[in-house]
Amino acid sequence: MGSLETERTTVGWAARDPSGVLSPYTYNLRDTGAEDVYIKVLCCGLCHSDIHQAKNDLGMSNYPMVPGHEVVGEVVEVGSEVTRFRVGERVGVGIVVGCCGGCTPCKSDLEQYCSKKIWNYNDVYTDGKPTQGGFAGEMVVHQKFVVKIPEGMEPEQVAPLLCAGITVYSPLRHFGLTASGLRGGILGLGGVGHMGVKIAKAMGHHVTVISSSEKKKEEALEQLGADAYLVSSDEEAMKSAIDSLDYIIDTVPVVHPLEPYILLLKLNGKLIITGVINAPLQFMSPLIMLGRKSITGTFIGSTKETEEMLEFCKKKDVTSQIEVVKMDYINEAFARLAKNDVRYRFVVDVAGSQLDQ
Amino acid sequence: MGSLETERTTVGWAARDPSGVLSPYTYNLRDTGAEDVYIKVLCCGLCHSDIHQAKNDLGMSNYPMVPGHEVVGEVVEVGSEVTRFRVGERVGVGIVVGCCGGCTPCKSDLEQYCSKKIWNYNDVYTDGKPTQGGFAGEMVVHQKFVVKIPEGMEPEQVAPLLCAGITVYSPLRHFGLTASGLRGGILGLGGVGHMGVKIAKAMGHHVTVISSSEKKKEEALEQLGADAYLVSSDEEAMKSAIDSLDYIIDTVPVVHPLEPYILLLKLNGKLIITGVINAPLQFMSPLIMLGRKSITGTFIGSTKETEEMLEFCKKKDVTSQIEVVKMDYINEAFARLAKNDVRYRFVVDVAGSQLDQ
Repeated sequence: MGSLETERTTVGWAARDPSGVLSPYTYNLRDTGAEDVYIKVLCCGLCHSDIHQAKNDLGMSNYPMVPGHEVVGEVVEVGSEVTRFRVGERVGVGIVVGCCGGCTPCKSDLEQYCSKKIWNYNDVYTDGKPTQGGFAGEMVVHQKFVVKIPEGMEPEQVAPLLCAGITVYSPLRHFGLTASGLRGGILGLGGVGHMGVKIAKAMGHHVTVISSSEKKKEEALEQLGADAYLVSSDEEAMKSAIDSLDYIIDTVPVVHPLEPYILLLKLNGKLIITGVINAPLQFMSPLIMLGRKSITGTFIGSTKETEEMLEFCKKKDVTSQIEVVKMDYINEAFARLAKNDVRYRFVVDVAGSQLDQ
Repeated sequence: MGSLETERTTVGWAARDPSGVLSPYTYNLRDTGAEDVYIKVLCCGLCHSDIHQAKNDLGMSNYPMVPGHEVVGEVVEVGSEVTRFRVGERVGVGIVVGCCGGCTPCKSDLEQYCSKKIWNYNDVYTDGKPTQGGFAGEMVVHQKFVVKIPEGMEPEQVAPLLCAGITVYSPLRHFGLTASGLRGGILGLGGVGHMGVKIAKAMGHHVTVISSSEKKKEEALEQLGADAYLVSSDEEAMKSAIDSLDYIIDTVPVVHPLEPYILLLKLNGKLIITGVINAPLQFMSPLIMLGRKSITGTFIGSTKETEEMLEFCKKKDVTSQIEVVKMDYINEAFARLAKNDVRYRFVVDVAGSQLDQ
C-alpha cells in the first residue's frame, strides 16, 4: 500500500466545458492499491480523439476532464501485489485502465474489447471517482493496464506508439497482414497514418499513401519511406491503382466515401477503419461481394499486444515523427491538430513543464 | 466437335423489355466447341436476381433475355477435349460461364471473382453472341463452368443449391466458420435464407433466424430446424441477443439498417452480406471497431467449391424446400417471388414443360 498521505493530489490540465480549452486543475489521486502502479508522467502524446472528447463532439463528455492517453512515465511506487514493475522503470499507459476481468475478451487477453472497460479519462473508476488522463503530473493505474517499455527507447518516441502505433499494428497482426511483400495503403497522413507507413514498411510491405492533395507527397516518400503516393482526386491515378492493394488502413477521422478505396483493394482485400466517426459511412454491397472484400476495424490493442508492438518497433528501429511542446502550448497544439498542422504528432513534455500555472 | 447442324436453335422463355414478362423465344446455340458441353436442361431454379435482371432494376439489362442460373441438365454431347463429362451425366450450371483464365482469381480456382467473367445470361460470350440462361431447352457451356452432380441427388433438389446453396456455403467455408457449435444468424428467410438455415445446421451450428415478423416462426423452427427465432422489431428480444452470434448471413435483398444486426455479433463477428442491393448500406465506425467486427460478402462459389458443396449436401442429406412449376407458370412465379410468396424456391420443370407456346 502507499506510504504517502491518503489525500494525495496532482495537477493536470483540464477542459472545463465544450470549448475544450485546457487549464491547470488540481485533483485527488487514489492511494496506491495492492495492484496499482503510481506513475510520474514524463510525456504524453496528443491524439485527435482527445479533441473529440474535450469538445464533447461525441456528446458524452464530463468536466473537468484531463485528456491524454499516450502516456509515458516512471514508476514511483508500486502496490504490495505488483509483480510486473519496479520503482524507477519506464512504463506506458494507453486508453484503457480497467475491465471486468470475467468476460470472453478479458479472458482472452483482449481486455480492450470488454464491454465494461474503463477509459483512462472521461470515465468513472471502480472507486466511483472520475478517471483523468496523462496531461497531468501523476497517475495511479492498475498493473494490468501498465505497459512495459523496452530498455533504450526514448519516452517521447514511445508516446505516439501507445495509441497511433498500436492502432495500426493490431489489425495488421490480427488479420494476418504481416508477411513481407504485401501491398498496403495508408489513407490519410496524420498521427495514425504516419505510424501506419512506418510500421507497414518495417513489416516489409509496399506502402502507398493515399491523400487528398499533393501536399504531403515529398515528405511521405522521402521522409517516411512510402513507396507510392496516390492523390484521391486524380481519377486517372486512382483508376490505374484499382485492384492493387491487400489492405488499406483508413485513418480519416471524418465522414468520407469508401467506394473509391474499396475499388483499390484486391480480391480478399480489407478496408480497416481506425477513425471513430460520429456519422454513418456508406458502401454498395456488390463492391464488397464481387471481390470478397471486408470492411473492418479494430480498437487499439491489449496490454500484451502493445508490449509486443513496442518490442517490434525497438527491433525494427521504428520511430515516430513528433513535435515536442510544453504544457502551456497545449491549447495551441489542440488548435493546430484540428487543422492537421503538425508533423505528425504533438508530444507534451509533461515532466519538463510547470503544470500549476 | 458437334455433329448437329451449324445453326442449332433452342427455345427459351425471354423477357423482351423492363416489364420483365417472359414468353417463348427461339435463338441459336453455338456449335459444341472442343471444350464445350451441350446440355439438355431438366430444371432451373428462380432467384431474386432473375427479377432484378428481367426488370432492368440494375440498369444493365439487354433484351431479349432468357434468365435462369440454377440450371440442372443432362449432357447430350461433349466436345473433343472435354475430359470431365460423359454423355448422359447430370450436370449443373450456375451464374458464371466464362472468365479470362489469366488473372490471379482465375489461377486460384476463384474464377467467379475474375473481373472479365461472363455471366450466364445478359452478357456477351467470346463469340460475340448474347449469353442466355436456363429457362430454355438447351445450353452450350464450356466444361470449366459445368458442375458435376453427385449420383443420386434429385435434379429439382440440386437446382437451388447452385446459387442459393453456394451463396451461404462459400462464406462459411472461406471465413473458417464451419466448426460445430458456432452460433449463426440467418437474416431473412427466403430462398437463400432457407438454404442458410439448412447448411448451417448441417455444419452443426446453433442457428437463429432473424425476421421482421412472427410469420415464419413455426416453419423456421419446426420445418427448417432452426434453433431460435428473433423478431427484429422486438426490442427486448434483440437486446437480449446482443453479443451472441459468431456470424450473420444477411440475405435481405433491399436496403436495410445494419446496426441492429452488428450489435448481435460477438467479438470478431462477421456480417456477411449476400444481397446485391442497388442503394448504399450504412454503418457507424465505432460499432465495428469496438468489437473487431467485419462487414463482408462473397459471390457464389467456383466450380470446384460448388462441387464440394454438393458433396457436402449429399453427405449431410441437405435438401431444399421447393415449389416445382411448369414453364407456363413462370410469370406468376416471378410475381409471387417478388412478394416473397414461396416456400422457399420456385424450380421450373423445364424438361417437363412445353416451351414453344
